[in-house]
Amino acid sequence: MQDVNLGLYFLSELVGTAMLILLGAGVVANVILAKSKGFGGGTLMINWGWGLAVFAGVLVSAYSGAILNPAVGLGLLISGTIDVPMFFVATAAELVGAIIGAVLAWAAYRQHFDEEEDPANKLGVFSTGPAIRSYGHNLVTEIIATFVLVFVILAFADYGDVEVGVPGALGPLTALPVALLVVSIGASLGGPTGYAINPARDLGPRIAHAILPIKGKGSSDWSYAWVPVVGPLVGGALAALLAPVVLNLA
Amino acid sequence: MQDVNLGLYFLSELVGTAMLILLGAGVVANVILAKSKGFGGGTLMINWGWGLAVFAGVLVSAYSGAILNPAVGLGLLISGTIDVPMFFVATAAELVGAIIGAVLAWAAYRQHFDEEEDPANKLGVFSTGPAIRSYGHNLVTEIIATFVLVFVILAFADYGDVEVGVPGALGPLTALPVALLVVSIGASLGGPTGYAINPARDLGPRIAHAILPIKGKGSSDWSYAWVPVVGPLVGGALAALLAPVVLNLA
Amino acid sequence: MQDVNLGLYFLSELVGTAMLILLGAGVVANVILAKSKGFGGGTLMINWGWGLAVFAGVLVSAYSGAILNPAVGLGLLISGTIDVPMFFVATAAELVGAIIGAVLAWAAYRQHFDEEEDPANKLGVFSTGPAIRSYGHNLVTEIIATFVLVFVILAFADYGDVEVGVPGALGPLTALPVALLVVSIGASLGGPTGYAINPARDLGPRIAHAILPIKGKGSSDWSYAWVPVVGPLVGGALAALLAPVVLNLA
Amino acid sequence: MQDVNLGLYFLSELVGTAMLILLGAGVVANVILAKSKGFGGGTLMINWGWGLAVFAGVLVSAYSGAILNPAVGLGLLISGTIDVPMFFVATAAELVGAIIGAVLAWAAYRQHFDEEEDPANKLGVFSTGPAIRSYGHNLVTEIIATFVLVFVILAFADYGDVEVGVPGALGPLTALPVALLVVSIGASLGGPTGYAINPARDLGPRIAHAILPIKGKGSSDWSYAWVPVVGPLVGGALAALLAPVVLNLA
Repeated sequence: MQDVNLGLYFLSELVGTAMLILLGAGVVANVILAKSKGFGGGTLMINWGWGLAVFAGVLVSAYSGAILNPAVGLGLLISGTIDVPMFFVATAAELVGAIIGAVLAWAAYRQHFDEEEDPANKLGVFSTGPAIRSYGHNLVTEIIATFVLVFVILAFADYGDVEVGVPGALGPLTALPVALLVVSIGASLGGPTGYAINPARDLGPRIAHAILPIKGKGSSDWSYAWVPVVGPLVGGALAALLAPVVLNLA
Repeated sequence: MQDVNLGLYFLSELVGTAMLILLGAGVVANVILAKSKGFGGGTLMINWGWGLAVFAGVLVSAYSGAILNPAVGLGLLISGTIDVPMFFVATAAELVGAIIGAVLAWAAYRQHFDEEEDPANKLGVFSTGPAIRSYGHNLVTEIIATFVLVFVILAFADYGDVEVGVPGALGPLTALPVALLVVSIGASLGGPTGYAINPARDLGPRIAHAILPIKGKGSSDWSYAWVPVVGPLVGGALAALLAPVVLNLA
Repeated sequence: MQDVNLGLYFLSELVGTAMLILLGAGVVANVILAKSKGFGGGTLMINWGWGLAVFAGVLVSAYSGAILNPAVGLGLLISGTIDVPMFFVATAAELVGAIIGAVLAWAAYRQHFDEEEDPANKLGVFSTGPAIRSYGHNLVTEIIATFVLVFVILAFADYGDVEVGVPGALGPLTALPVALLVVSIGASLGGPTGYAINPARDLGPRIAHAILPIKGKGSSDWSYAWVPVVGPLVGGALAALLAPVVLNLA
Repeated sequence: MQDVNLGLYFLSELVGTAMLILLGAGVVANVILAKSKGFGGGTLMINWGWGLAVFAGVLVSAYSGAILNPAVGLGLLISGTIDVPMFFVATAAELVGAIIGAVLAWAAYRQHFDEEEDPANKLGVFSTGPAIRSYGHNLVTEIIATFVLVFVILAFADYGDVEVGVPGALGPLTALPVALLVVSIGASLGGPTGYAINPARDLGPRIAHAILPIKGKGSSDWSYAWVPVVGPLVGGALAALLAPVVLNLA
């Protein structure tokens, strides 16, 4: 590993995750909030929106290699790409960045939050929730979906020129494959839980939802909040453990 | 900076912006005007249409580096990539090009404008308007959306081979990332105001709407016209000021 | 120009255009014919289908540089990339290939043609028709749309590594940009006439429609057939004449 | 051919095909099963989902060159890229991988299978079925669609840097073109039979459907099962035989 300036590392992860959440929460707001021009735009639009949100997030997070996700970070920690201080700095930055991104999305759609009558839709812009609530099944789905994310990232990180800036994981050159991968996971595995696949992506905006003075907001659904944290971490860890065994990584 | 032929620079920006607006206004016409084959094609189709309109516009604007947007130009001026004469020449060219592109889109969809009964839809092909009118909130949305555009462009311009022809900003090699970024911004931040994110994109076609003998046209809504000019310029300037601080640009 | 084997040149254009029309007619059949799984899939699906049909067609037409379109061929003739014999050989091959592709699409969707009740939908799989019939306006739309196609192709052909096999125009490396360009033109300028933008794409399948024993077929609408031949040729020629003036081509 | 470790070859094909089927079956589950968030997402979403499933599958199957499909394998065998032992090892691995992938998709959507009332939809997640049953016509459609797949793959395999790891066929660098090709085939030729175009993709999940204790499941429709096995093999063989004749392969 090269020398890493942990301050810049923190800043890079914060900026990238804020961008990711601003655009990711934004597309959900566009499709589900009252009177928005994209109202009823459909699932595929949400899938592309989140995928391209990752694309933009990766592009502005080059210094740290654009981890943007504690589940990916845990995978990189297990596979030896990053060390423990980098993991914790990145995770903290991702959480703060996610909160900032959620606040910005709320600012951009402020009037549509005010006009929206269903509190569940307001929370839905910020955080994921299950289509059918059942913690065990929901956890399985999040584990599988995040396993796919981290497993595929580790697979193609083995080939490309992915260590930009510092020994993070991704960089501008790999922004497109990751974006397409996230479109894929959303379309294919997002049905049951809304594909959090990222603890910071779910927890950060949920904190923002709890704190922000959103007109007519309901519960932040904290009873579900552990699922999209634990599931992705387990899935990411499993991917990192299995990848060297079955992927023939160099 | 290399030597720039300002005449060719003007021509290149004019051609690129005309292409951008022809295709961008075209996709809106296809989706919202009466009897068009794409009627009801949906928001995602409009997002892809505008994104690929940028793609085509960049490809035909190589000499000047395909700025195509005064908000991007202002960002490049602040970051020192272009100088004051280049900024003003580009901006003038973009405005003229946008008017030409809007006239061509009207020509291509002439009969559908004639058949359309709602004057608001006719104006909607040319210029943006808010889903819920409130200048302050609309301005905030345009500032945030344009900030994203210019900030991400500055981020990846720092890596790729982006100075084609003259020291503009983008070139053929970067057409795809910018196109995807515009799809992203449209899907994620287009809900409240229709994502002008470009003063020339909104003002040029609005002028065309005011001048053209469009059958049964209504107001050109000049009272809103300043929002998609001021918002993008503010967002672009903020991005250019913040980028060197938080992006660790070389 | 290098030495060209006109027999292989013919074969390459035939194969590429057959692939283009099989996939292009196929997506229309999927979306509009009775009982098809893609029935009602929407305009954006048709746009992507045709764009990716071009992608596949270009990939199998490397020897000749994948012209696939007499309007593009005319543009290349005017700009001096191909000579007169190559133009005529390519055009003949494209017409024959388009007929073969249309026959294959009919074979693949045979039962759905049989089940379909509306003769207009059957013809709609093969050839384009106007949303509002008016030869003058329809011609203008086809001229503008094909101008965009050929103009952008000439623009980016100036940069990339596009002369594969023989001095044609495109090659495998440029398949993606052309595909995206065709998605763009379809989404943005396809509303009034269904974007033939290619004389072979429209005339070849129309001949197939006239010849094939399609159950319950109606007129092949020969009165309109000249529009999607003349319009694209005029648009392609205008693009080739204007490109060197305004694109600063090397 | 280089030395191939057939154990790793098997593992690589197994992992890649499991990923392909998990994501491919997943997108169908998302769109058609009761209460899923993507319910009613449409045909284009399914097309993108399967295309990007191929993308992810190729990325995790680099050692073996990501064949993932016995019809592609047969084409590579005929064209001399792989030998008989490699073909049989790959085919066995693909079948096992497809079963594993289908089980994982069922696990991810477990509750939605339980809530779904129509047994046909449950089978539809696993295997293809015809829109209008007629073995002869269905076979023709699968032959044509798979011909396109293998023919285009052989065409572009001739150009790119496709022999990654061992002399398989594809590799990470070609993941995107194959993905787009599969989107294309789905959109254009998927209407009549649901585009199996891969014996392992259809047979493996059908076996999983027969074995798994799926609540309220109906028939596994074995009477149709031979069509998506025989059709793709015939189509792949025809493509491999015709490609050297008409593609001018080096």
